[in-house]
Amino acid sequence: MPIATNTDFTREEVRLALRNPGMPLEALRRDVTPIGMHYVLVHFDIPDVDATTFELVVDGCVRTRLSLSLDQLRARPAVTTPVMMECAGGGRAHLTPRPVSAPWHDEAIGCAEWTGTPLRGVLEEAGLLDDAVELLFTGADRGLDQGVEQDYQRSLTVDEAMTDGVLLAYAMNGEPLPPPHGFPLRLLVPDWYGMASVKWLRSITAIAEPFEGVQQTQLYRYRRSEDEPGTPVTRKKPRALMAPPGIPEFLSRTRHVPAGRTLVEGRAWSGAGAIERVEFSADGGATWGDARLGEPNGRHGWRAWSFEWDATPGDHELSARATDAAGDVQPLDSEDAWNLGGYGVNAVQRVVVRVS
Amino acid sequence: MPIATNTDFTREEVRLALRNPGMPLEALRRDVTPIGMHYVLVHFDIPDVDATTFELVVDGCVRTRLSLSLDQLRARPAVTTPVMMECAGGGRAHLTPRPVSAPWHDEAIGCAEWTGTPLRGVLEEAGLLDDAVELLFTGADRGLDQGVEQDYQRSLTVDEAMTDGVLLAYAMNGEPLPPPHGFPLRLLVPDWYGMASVKWLRSITAIAEPFEGVQQTQLYRYRRSEDEPGTPVTRKKPRALMAPPGIPEFLSRTRHVPAGRTLVEGRAWSGAGAIERVEFSADGGATWGDARLGEPNGRHGWRAWSFEWDATPGDHELSARATDAAGDVQPLDSEDAWNLGGYGVNAVQRVVVRVS
Repeated sequence: MPIATNTDFTREEVRLALRNPGMPLEALRRDVTPIGMHYVLVHFDIPDVDATTFELVVDGCVRTRLSLSLDQLRARPAVTTPVMMECAGGGRAHLTPRPVSAPWHDEAIGCAEWTGTPLRGVLEEAGLLDDAVELLFTGADRGLDQGVEQDYQRSLTVDEAMTDGVLLAYAMNGEPLPPPHGFPLRLLVPDWYGMASVKWLRSITAIAEPFEGVQQTQLYRYRRSEDEPGTPVTRKKPRALMAPPGIPEFLSRTRHVPAGRTLVEGRAWSGAGAIERVEFSADGGATWGDARLGEPNGRHGWRAWSFEWDATPGDHELSARATDAAGDVQPLDSEDAWNLGGYGVNAVQRVVVRVS
Repeated sequence: MPIATNTDFTREEVRLALRNPGMPLEALRRDVTPIGMHYVLVHFDIPDVDATTFELVVDGCVRTRLSLSLDQLRARPAVTTPVMMECAGGGRAHLTPRPVSAPWHDEAIGCAEWTGTPLRGVLEEAGLLDDAVELLFTGADRGLDQGVEQDYQRSLTVDEAMTDGVLLAYAMNGEPLPPPHGFPLRLLVPDWYGMASVKWLRSITAIAEPFEGVQQTQLYRYRRSEDEPGTPVTRKKPRALMAPPGIPEFLSRTRHVPAGRTLVEGRAWSGAGAIERVEFSADGGATWGDARLGEPNGRHGWRAWSFEWDATPGDHELSARATDAAGDVQPLDSEDAWNLGGYGVNAVQRVVVRVS
């Protein structure tokens, strides 16, 4: 993707932002993100799929080709679970120079309650043959990217696809999937960034060679130059975000907070394990105090945290940072996470607050 | 608001775009916009209102002060109707120089089915006193704009408030209002731009003098310089938009269409009366042909149109323009609609298409 060296944004970035909403950060006070507040990233157009004639095809290196209607999928064992979802491009717009794509800052997030049937059961019923190495997931959305016309496609290895928690999801917060979230069916890979959770899913093909498509070999790779192959973007890195306290100014979004004890609340998550610690800073990251952690919201949800901050008159920069069970901690500076695609930029949030 | 003379966008504009989603234009193929695809404009933060303790207060110059719970509002006569809604800032980002605010292009639109009770009945029950000249509507959202800390407030004259079709709405597409759309209650002024339809409505006050707040005297006025008082922004101007045909390129959104007969579909609306004509152009507005009109979708919905276009190889610029019952027609050039706030910029849409 192109790289911008100036701090202003292109019209293409603005139009992507208008098509692809973030979650307003005040929703970080909620365990479950309402439909219409959850972030959306749509690569091409939102397809209009007819649920009455819909069939999910499972084919390729399988003993039994399957063709499953929505009713047949709904009749299978069902799981309902909160899943924190995040776009791999979250934080990209904090980088200098800046990869030109969806200009996410901190809001490419959401945590809905998803209902679906475990993928593993469907794959076991189809019966993977010994030569199957990956499952290829194809959506109904089609367009051009990196000069290649394509259906949106991503693959998982057999082991990744058979993992507990991977779902074929047909409901979000108890409702049929809204069109931007993949109606009528999507894949859900809870620990990974969102690109793996293929929407408008229409086929699953067991393949004998690793998938080499654009969304896997050219995009969604950590690399610092076009010359290196890089490593694939997979699990979400740890991150803590706060609901900005006080009230905002319309254009600048600067926060105005009355002096005194202020409860700062937020949520934290990681794709590599439970959140073990969240710290809060009111001085731009110079000093930190431990936040109080709430109960985890399921194995794949986010975890609430809060900090009683004594707001004193003046301007302050508030931050939070998370540490996960793998020992990974957020960097202070976005540039430490710089990469060509602007993926996984999980530097600490910085919220400017004016106390009076 | 500030004015930008360069073509790039500021970080403030991008962050407003990420908070305030547009409707992806492929939804122009639908009569009813699903929740999660309808545009949203939130001036401050989305408040978290407790519906169980919620009360709408009607006070001021009335014979009987009212305090109505959500159950009491739902027990009143109910109307369900499609309403086309549009932000007054739609088209702003096409202007040069550009007013710096939410950087809408063509997507600040949506047409949902709203359910509520007529405002007139509630005002009649309260009994407006003779000295009442306006009704002031106050939302639960609070912040700073134009240097003034404020609740979001707008007024209507008594005549405007008593108009048929003005609702106190508590449902959208048959569901309780989603938080970004005003849960649990909003005003709905069908023919006007969206700023009049106050969300998170908590009080209606009959006042004896015209309201002079920021959202009415400083913002939402047509004027070409800070010196002139200007005229208030009220009804939606006529507009036709198409669902861009073919498939998109991810970043540029350029459309790719196979040669041959192509059905171009869209919707048109006006706040000044029915849509009487929609024209289509495939040569940048040099020549026009009449589109076929569908049935109007209620008195306040949008009207479907379509045009069978013979797509020939090469690059084309597609446009549509609407004429309403008042005889108003869309301008070809955004600059003809230039004003300081970037309001009501209803110049024809321009969609670049590559046919092969």
